[in-house]
Amino acid sequence: MGINSVMADISPIRLVIHGGAGAIKRGKLKAELEHAYTQALAQSLMAGYAVLAAGGSSIDAVIAAIVVMEDCPLFNAGKGSVFSHTGRNELEASIMEGSTLMAGAVAAVTTIRNPILAAHAVMTKSTHVMLMGEGAEAFAAEQGLAIVDPSYFYTQFRWDQLQKAIAKEHVLRDHDAGVLLPDEHEKRGTVGAVALDRHGNLAAGTSTGGLTNKRFGRVGDSPIIGAGTYADNRSVAVSATGTGEMFIRAAAAFHTAAQVRLQHKPIADAANNVLAEIAAMGGDGGLIVLDAEGNHAMCFNTIGMYRGVIGSDGIARVGIFPGAETPTPEK
Amino acid sequence: MGINSVMADISPIRLVIHGGAGAIKRGKLKAELEHAYTQALAQSLMAGYAVLAAGGSSIDAVIAAIVVMEDCPLFNAGKGSVFSHTGRNELEASIMEGSTLMAGAVAAVTTIRNPILAAHAVMTKSTHVMLMGEGAEAFAAEQGLAIVDPSYFYTQFRWDQLQKAIAKEHVLRDHDAGVLLPDEHEKRGTVGAVALDRHGNLAAGTSTGGLTNKRFGRVGDSPIIGAGTYADNRSVAVSATGTGEMFIRAAAAFHTAAQVRLQHKPIADAANNVLAEIAAMGGDGGLIVLDAEGNHAMCFNTIGMYRGVIGSDGIARVGIFPGAETPTPEK
Repeated sequence: MGINSVMADISPIRLVIHGGAGAIKRGKLKAELEHAYTQALAQSLMAGYAVLAAGGSSIDAVIAAIVVMEDCPLFNAGKGSVFSHTGRNELEASIMEGSTLMAGAVAAVTTIRNPILAAHAVMTKSTHVMLMGEGAEAFAAEQGLAIVDPSYFYTQFRWDQLQKAIAKEHVLRDHDAGVLLPDEHEKRGTVGAVALDRHGNLAAGTSTGGLTNKRFGRVGDSPIIGAGTYADNRSVAVSATGTGEMFIRAAAAFHTAAQVRLQHKPIADAANNVLAEIAAMGGDGGLIVLDAEGNHAMCFNTIGMYRGVIGSDGIARVGIFPGAETPTPEK
Repeated sequence: MGINSVMADISPIRLVIHGGAGAIKRGKLKAELEHAYTQALAQSLMAGYAVLAAGGSSIDAVIAAIVVMEDCPLFNAGKGSVFSHTGRNELEASIMEGSTLMAGAVAAVTTIRNPILAAHAVMTKSTHVMLMGEGAEAFAAEQGLAIVDPSYFYTQFRWDQLQKAIAKEHVLRDHDAGVLLPDEHEKRGTVGAVALDRHGNLAAGTSTGGLTNKRFGRVGDSPIIGAGTYADNRSVAVSATGTGEMFIRAAAAFHTAAQVRLQHKPIADAANNVLAEIAAMGGDGGLIVLDAEGNHAMCFNTIGMYRGVIGSDGIARVGIFPGAETPTPEK
């Protein structure tokens, strides 16, 4: 990189991620599992940081960070996705670029290994924003993305979750599983990332396996631009996790961005206002927010949220419970 | 109705509808067809007005108005839906209630006669906001809604449109068909309605047959809460029609509402700001907006928009081209 481009690219770099928000109780999360989560979050942060530190784009950093979490069975996205009522894994994801307002999303896909890559392909290789079901799968295959047998998404733990949920005839929210099934292994969620690159461009992405025991082709907020994901260089990049229906009704991601753009609200205030409206509807969850100056917020009104942040110093800071995120070397 | 309830229910009633925006050229629209459109719009307005005048809810008025347009072959929604590339009619719709922020939507449905009724059932009879595909159809059937053979949606005119589009290998936007196929019969679009009832409650709904020759399970803005539809008693009810992808990226309906709520912008200014952002992305279309005091706007940056409004005087006013809407008795 020449001096001119270094001079031109003076924006601080930053990546913020989440791995779901929910009833994660301190003291109930076993030490080994807590360690596994913090390591997975640190690995995701380092993957995205490598892109940003090398001068790569925020959109590529978001993808790199999310792919790590999609490939990790700990999170309800990609490999670790929960089962729908009919025993399928119906995945959804979305991505958006703050400089162009380009966006892509997929919903109800069952054979795409990394839905965030499919969302990106929709954004960059089609004239559309949102594709669903078999059509989205056919498009992903045409684009050369990794297609897997649906059995790839089988994990014994998630299958057992479904059987218990069917027995209880209850639709489980991924991160609320702990309410019905007080096992700390089950408090897991949707993943997401927001990034700022050296060029000052924001991006946001979100990926999920949805709800255990969901029926009727339910679509949550994760693939909805404006609800689960939004990015606009004029305001912020946002990714959401929580009770998807309320996040759609609140247009959670866009409303966060709108308060920053239209009212110049501090980003944490904007996110907390949205979470308060969602709480008034009976919902909960979290929002990660990043502005074009590198200011970030990780807000949640649940007991905990798997989350992390990395900036120009290259130190991954990770948190699960309320309180400051702590440096967590990848091991 | 007793005096007390009359005293309590003093809000003006109003219903605003659209039947799609696009390259509808004055002088190219044959007189008989123009008459058919104005009559269909007036019929839709009178159906919704009957609900409001009888003290019914804005949500029921929105449904009544949209069902008339879904059942009319002139509009690209319900009966008149366009064909996807594979020769299917994949319909989508959404609805939202401004007093509760409750919402419902369906996408990629092929057998539900009136998708707006299915969207309403999702809102009122499920814990979800958005259902898609076969799951949504199974839910609608469980709810006792009219299920039809996909051949119900066959119209010779739409089939011919698809064959021409395949021949040209071009994805046609419903209301842009005229650009490729300069026949005034083909400038038709998505339908929508916004209403204010005597109780001061707003509602909005949108229904569409999508894009001629669309592929890969494409979802547009019509079933996306925040993009094609939004309603909030604190600001406005909005329904959109146009280049769906840009309306999603702009979060068109919610952004209109947000400017009114957060910045107290006049409603037409809010809508025109959104249309300007969509134009900057290369898109166009229209927005109908109604606030809780009964002020309304019908904005479009296309050549024309099928539209109409009716208020407490019970006179249906209809327009297609720019300029004031004119009284149009139903005949």
